[in-house]
Amino acid sequence: MPGRIDARLAELGITLPEPAKPLANYVPFTISARHVFVSGQGGMLNGRPRWPGKVGLTVGMEDGALSAQLAFINVLAQLRVACGGDLDRVEQVVRLGGFVACGADFTQHGIVMNGASDLAVALFGEAGRHARTTVGVPSLPLDLSVEVEGLFRIA
Amino acid sequence: MPGRIDARLAELGITLPEPAKPLANYVPFTISARHVFVSGQGGMLNGRPRWPGKVGLTVGMEDGALSAQLAFINVLAQLRVACGGDLDRVEQVVRLGGFVACGADFTQHGIVMNGASDLAVALFGEAGRHARTTVGVPSLPLDLSVEVEGLFRIA
Amino acid sequence: MPGRIDARLAELGITLPEPAKPLANYVPFTISARHVFVSGQGGMLNGRPRWPGKVGLTVGMEDGALSAQLAFINVLAQLRVACGGDLDRVEQVVRLGGFVACGADFTQHGIVMNGASDLAVALFGEAGRHARTTVGVPSLPLDLSVEVEGLFRIA
Repeated sequence: MPGRIDARLAELGITLPEPAKPLANYVPFTISARHVFVSGQGGMLNGRPRWPGKVGLTVGMEDGALSAQLAFINVLAQLRVACGGDLDRVEQVVRLGGFVACGADFTQHGIVMNGASDLAVALFGEAGRHARTTVGVPSLPLDLSVEVEGLFRIA
Repeated sequence: MPGRIDARLAELGITLPEPAKPLANYVPFTISARHVFVSGQGGMLNGRPRWPGKVGLTVGMEDGALSAQLAFINVLAQLRVACGGDLDRVEQVVRLGGFVACGADFTQHGIVMNGASDLAVALFGEAGRHARTTVGVPSLPLDLSVEVEGLFRIA
Repeated sequence: MPGRIDARLAELGITLPEPAKPLANYVPFTISARHVFVSGQGGMLNGRPRWPGKVGLTVGMEDGALSAQLAFINVLAQLRVACGGDLDRVEQVVRLGGFVACGADFTQHGIVMNGASDLAVALFGEAGRHARTTVGVPSLPLDLSVEVEGLFRIA
């Protein structure tokens, strides 16, 4: 019997990917005092960036938002492991950090990051409403266009 | 009867603005385990950036520090809501994150961010002394010159 | 009698420096609910950046990783103070944030940051495995090439 959040994922047509293995001496998440810290994730698909480049330059706004959404989907894939497979244990999306690769004259970082935030609320409802910090960066690992990190409280 | 911190704000000649409403599916703050996570705030005044641009290029150092101070004032406006209107409940300014829009050759990020840090200590005293991470960014939402996020422990 | 982690530091040939004093109204660390928040540290040696510049441009990959390692060593110096001198009290390296000064076409941020992550695990073993967020930035305070912040749970 699928959980409430798994059912909602299915309604939204989202299948969480196999969570990526970290390539180094860090781990995809840590748990401390009932809070899950998920490492920065990018919009990777099948092992490589789905939308590499800079938003507003080589990546359009719509693809930028999809890149943020996919990064958040990858955050969720790690979060599910942290929850022992049961996303219903998530009590609160506490904070999302969004890093948008872009140029000096870019101003629409918030719209890009909404790709992640909208999914958080579509999935978790009121518990999905989160604090957020979104900034521009000149470049991200592997030429990712967006990187998202997450902090969640779980039961 | 105003609280201790409200009185201190008045002494400093600072009036907290109406806290800005978020424009998306995120919220200005979350509270988890007695910690308030305030979303990244900019130096907005009456709905637009007071000092847009890049510090060291189109924004001078003094205005950059004022921009950081105003961003922190907007953090405080959200924090006051989180505290149910009573800033005396703030036990500790735990951490501030500062993002300064600037060029590749800028080196004075710390001096800019002092605009926020100095106010934290002027307002909260010892409890205002915080951990801090300050970095440069190529651009911020709405062409803000500084963005500040905050983490606070409340009673 | 040195502690377990002090002994491991000695085995690794690492001497923690005198922790740097902050130059402003912030502090090197705060402690809240058994978590130590260490302010962003750079690869400072004897009061100035050991490897200033941009990784991939004026700083090579190997020096970039050493810069991240030295930044983390400076984080550890602050952490030791937070622990009252006893690093054996560290229960978990919860999260590291890494900021790499670089250009728009840089993609190897993760390899640079491994200089910090590898030391965390060499020192703390399983408890050193941490969540991590690594991004590029156009510039850092004092022309540092890498800045690292840390979150730790202590006993």
